[in-house]
Amino acid sequence: MLRIDLSQEELSQEQLRELEAMWRRCARRIILATTLAGCGHPGGSLSSLHLLLMSYAIMRHDPQQPRHPARDRLLVSHGHISPAVYSVLVEYGYASEEAFLMEFRRAGSAFAGHVEQTVPGVEWNTGNLGQGLSAACGMALSLKLKGLKDRRVLCLMGDGEQQKGQVIEARRFAVKFDLDNLMVIVDRNHLQIGGDTDLIIPQSIRDEYRATFWNVIYLCDGHDFAAIYRALRRAWLKEVENPARPTAILARTVMGKGISFMENVARWHGEALKPDMAREALKELGYDEDIEALFERRKAYVNFVKPFDVEVDYPDIDPGQPVVYGPEVKLDNRSAYGKALRSLAEINNLPGERPKILGFSCDLEGSVKMTAFKEWSPEAFFESGIQEHHAAAAAGAASREGFAVFFSTFGVFAVCETYNQQRLNDLNHTHLKVVATHLGLDVGEDGPTHQCLDYLGLLQNLFGFSIFLPADPNQTDRIIRYVATHPGNFFVGMGRSKTPIILDEEGRPFFGEDYRFEPGRADWIRRGDDGTFICFGPLVSRALEAREILAKEGLSIGVLNMASFRPLDTRAILDAALVGPIVTAEDHVVDTGLGAAVARVLVDAGVVVPFRRCGVSTYGSSGKPDDLYRRQGLDPQSLAQKMKELIKG
Amino acid sequence: MLRIDLSQEELSQEQLRELEAMWRRCARRIILATTLAGCGHPGGSLSSLHLLLMSYAIMRHDPQQPRHPARDRLLVSHGHISPAVYSVLVEYGYASEEAFLMEFRRAGSAFAGHVEQTVPGVEWNTGNLGQGLSAACGMALSLKLKGLKDRRVLCLMGDGEQQKGQVIEARRFAVKFDLDNLMVIVDRNHLQIGGDTDLIIPQSIRDEYRATFWNVIYLCDGHDFAAIYRALRRAWLKEVENPARPTAILARTVMGKGISFMENVARWHGEALKPDMAREALKELGYDEDIEALFERRKAYVNFVKPFDVEVDYPDIDPGQPVVYGPEVKLDNRSAYGKALRSLAEINNLPGERPKILGFSCDLEGSVKMTAFKEWSPEAFFESGIQEHHAAAAAGAASREGFAVFFSTFGVFAVCETYNQQRLNDLNHTHLKVVATHLGLDVGEDGPTHQCLDYLGLLQNLFGFSIFLPADPNQTDRIIRYVATHPGNFFVGMGRSKTPIILDEEGRPFFGEDYRFEPGRADWIRRGDDGTFICFGPLVSRALEAREILAKEGLSIGVLNMASFRPLDTRAILDAALVGPIVTAEDHVVDTGLGAAVARVLVDAGVVVPFRRCGVSTYGSSGKPDDLYRRQGLDPQSLAQKMKELIKG
Repeated sequence: MLRIDLSQEELSQEQLRELEAMWRRCARRIILATTLAGCGHPGGSLSSLHLLLMSYAIMRHDPQQPRHPARDRLLVSHGHISPAVYSVLVEYGYASEEAFLMEFRRAGSAFAGHVEQTVPGVEWNTGNLGQGLSAACGMALSLKLKGLKDRRVLCLMGDGEQQKGQVIEARRFAVKFDLDNLMVIVDRNHLQIGGDTDLIIPQSIRDEYRATFWNVIYLCDGHDFAAIYRALRRAWLKEVENPARPTAILARTVMGKGISFMENVARWHGEALKPDMAREALKELGYDEDIEALFERRKAYVNFVKPFDVEVDYPDIDPGQPVVYGPEVKLDNRSAYGKALRSLAEINNLPGERPKILGFSCDLEGSVKMTAFKEWSPEAFFESGIQEHHAAAAAGAASREGFAVFFSTFGVFAVCETYNQQRLNDLNHTHLKVVATHLGLDVGEDGPTHQCLDYLGLLQNLFGFSIFLPADPNQTDRIIRYVATHPGNFFVGMGRSKTPIILDEEGRPFFGEDYRFEPGRADWIRRGDDGTFICFGPLVSRALEAREILAKEGLSIGVLNMASFRPLDTRAILDAALVGPIVTAEDHVVDTGLGAAVARVLVDAGVVVPFRRCGVSTYGSSGKPDDLYRRQGLDPQSLAQKMKELIKG
Repeated sequence: MLRIDLSQEELSQEQLRELEAMWRRCARRIILATTLAGCGHPGGSLSSLHLLLMSYAIMRHDPQQPRHPARDRLLVSHGHISPAVYSVLVEYGYASEEAFLMEFRRAGSAFAGHVEQTVPGVEWNTGNLGQGLSAACGMALSLKLKGLKDRRVLCLMGDGEQQKGQVIEARRFAVKFDLDNLMVIVDRNHLQIGGDTDLIIPQSIRDEYRATFWNVIYLCDGHDFAAIYRALRRAWLKEVENPARPTAILARTVMGKGISFMENVARWHGEALKPDMAREALKELGYDEDIEALFERRKAYVNFVKPFDVEVDYPDIDPGQPVVYGPEVKLDNRSAYGKALRSLAEINNLPGERPKILGFSCDLEGSVKMTAFKEWSPEAFFESGIQEHHAAAAAGAASREGFAVFFSTFGVFAVCETYNQQRLNDLNHTHLKVVATHLGLDVGEDGPTHQCLDYLGLLQNLFGFSIFLPADPNQTDRIIRYVATHPGNFFVGMGRSKTPIILDEEGRPFFGEDYRFEPGRADWIRRGDDGTFICFGPLVSRALEAREILAKEGLSIGVLNMASFRPLDTRAILDAALVGPIVTAEDHVVDTGLGAAVARVLVDAGVVVPFRRCGVSTYGSSGKPDDLYRRQGLDPQSLAQKMKELIKG
């Protein structure tokens, strides 16, 4: 395996010859793999190939231990150049050429169309452009926190994706947090799908990087190994204007480089060569290939290699002592979250040691109650500014590096604005704890732009996310301790307002000393004989009030709290159906949340029961939460009325 | 009403005195309104107040005709400064002081916490930061298309929101499309919620604007009317470096300006003064106010003014002649969309006249089949680069300006990535036609990052969006003609692959010459006696195949196509339930799409029927659509098998 020591000022002739030979083999694989698959991205692959090959030659990495903690990282942000990435990983001993050529872009194979971690050596699944640098920031800050100060994160990016706004967010973040271990290489071939980048969107990438305080190295031939080496070496050794700041190498490249008829032709961005043209291309590379035979082999090939399984890297977190808030307390769940997070930090982020818990916030630290955490663990807190897209992706990447990472902001930003970043986190099997405050109409006077009514409707689509919705500060405390101590993606959602402590029938805290949170277990706050309110969050106390109203009329109504929305306690729902009528109540769009979930459970089980879904059926307005609830029939009186109607048929 | 002619080089002493008096009255209203509401954003309001007052004095506008087509527009991007905006609108005759002070931030009132168009004079509902400039771009390009070349769009922005990536996307777009009629004023008070902007995220706003080719005017005192006037006048008259380009005025301001103890204190960003402090503040302004009496008045005040109702401005579009694709045609729905859009352009965008139909794309023009449209109407086509957040918001704003606007990209970008932009479009009552291609596993080899599996799960939460999913090219053609000719927000979704023409039992196109698309009407492609497949899009042809398989076993199964997902044809679903078992089939997350909707309908109606939901239950992989469908049980054989199991109980 080629390994070049940076003490060398220049590449030797022998190294150059070896790199050229490697390039030739890789270019062949790129052509073959895409032609055999009948699709893929050969043009950009050839554009980035020299840069990739050279990077791996100077990085510290080990194909035998692809996830060695002290490795340098190379993150490819423009994931469509997967043919180049896989080719180079074959060259450096991470994957087999046979598997790549035979399996590329086939259902169930590790060799996906956009790079995925199923191939060892791939650091991050990418594909939606403009998110890679954020993930690279998450990795770079993690290396620093781990004390691996001389390790580097290289982020290879396309030039088209420089248009995405998230990229400038990431650049500013990198500067704020002194990520001098971060390098960007921009594959500047001046072509994107639609043609010339300058015609699609006029942009001076160099000026934009400089305007955000980055060092910029211009590399006028991104296919000249000697020049690439010099630029990479300079960046690596921080021979730049400001060594405390990250560095970008803008490498002028040619789409389709190396195949005469592919060069500078936008068509080959996303189109494979037909076999005849592929044969021509391979001839230019010096190969005489029997492509038909390869097609036949591919048809017969069925034993796919096992996708690489990235081990879970999750810290051992001490959950500490739960806090029990007494009946007299009037607190918002946000504050209970903030207190739990601080107390977790006190026992897990020990002074002088590497922190285990990190926090990310987006200019709402006070509102989301992260201040106490920040004060205890300033080195573990990442105030990211009004840059939610970046922050969500960076937090996701950091959560894969052996930290328990909390990402907190209002629901509209943590879910609505960054849904796609959370989706890509989920595809990357992160261990992120998204704790969103200010959900629902409970936001109140800030009005509809700030009222997140759709968190369940959205997050249900992310298969890897568990979804928890605490009913009061006690349950919040327990849920936060639960998610801190468990790997995986979790969403914990809460409103803005103060909420009464939920009590049992004896007037003691329902979620008291003996309570343990368990995913998939609903809480029977009260049992009833005549019907059940199924609800969560701020609707629990309102359902309890509705129960009191109905008790005066001689009706006995149960209240079932679904704090664990996913996994869902279907058994409890079916138990409720055995009792009688069900009214679901939620501060959420009525068709996409709890009521809809209960409907699915009932229908799937073939159960018929008088049933009414109460929720939000139009955008909220700006006013006090109680007024807003009343306008949507979510106040105790309306809930009681609806239950009565159901019972009386 | 103060109106200053720009032929004046300087403000007169009299004008200065008048502006100062206006400022004092407005500052009073800001203090009073927030204190009476007990919440709101007084600090930023005082920061922006001088800039707002001066802007309205030079703009051409008419409180009697707030939506006069030839008005200049002022869009406030940092919508939390609503107290300042409403105060100034009171000053210029758009609203009553009494209503503002009595109603601010009360449920059902026009005077919302973040600016909304319910108050006349407000151009755009804002609140989530960083989106305003995109909407302003949409307005500016609309004015140009309408030939109102000397009208201006002013976008007043906060400095914190300059951190949002979407802002740089908007800036590049403005330069590309020569929006020299667009001006930005940045209220540069150096404070955001979390404190000093330079500490939150180091940023040189000036360098960043310059790096994107904007003219920049630095205004060192944003509270000096004479200086503001000179800067605004210079920008307005294009006395700048490059008059062909947009101009930003960076105005150095002071948070809480004018009240000694509020100045430069971040706390007053989002907190109202308590009555005692308010009294002190008002004293500084020269007012001795009986605040308690106002509180009493507010309590008794119930007759809210009617919210301003913005009229629908939608062009008269000729739907043209539908195209009927015969049984022999094998086409993707995307291409049918592209052809329909082109043919609509040919009869509605006449050479030399103002276009009625606009198209927005994000570097995927070819894939989403907008090229033919672009070639016919280059002036009406806005290639926006890989900048989906900006493009979605700009397209939304343009759709409110008397154009039928089509926004097309892949589903993951049109829905997942820009969900929050579509949400804000919906809150703004836009008339956008989001036509998303590449939905579902049907995307195939590009893999999970590119497979939008959640479009229904997401878009159902947007109350104003109709949702249509054509089954074949004929239905696509009809649906596109329908949405083009109707105001409102529409989502039209389709896959990537070619799809057979759906035929009736006589072998003629089902969606043939006599077919008219009707929202809320499902299509009985086949009737059956033993059960029904309910499906849409690419699953319709697969359900028909499953029907054939079952026919060989003597079973007669109906196929019901739900091309109109919203409004939903609940009647047709209940009719299907009368027949017998129902299997829903969808290329969508199984818990959040069609199956879930059918479950709701059945439960709400109290109907029990053997029922099975088939859909996507885990992220897809990279491979051929048929392989991916098979892996999730969505191939005809699996569907037939599931139906058989249901029928046999």
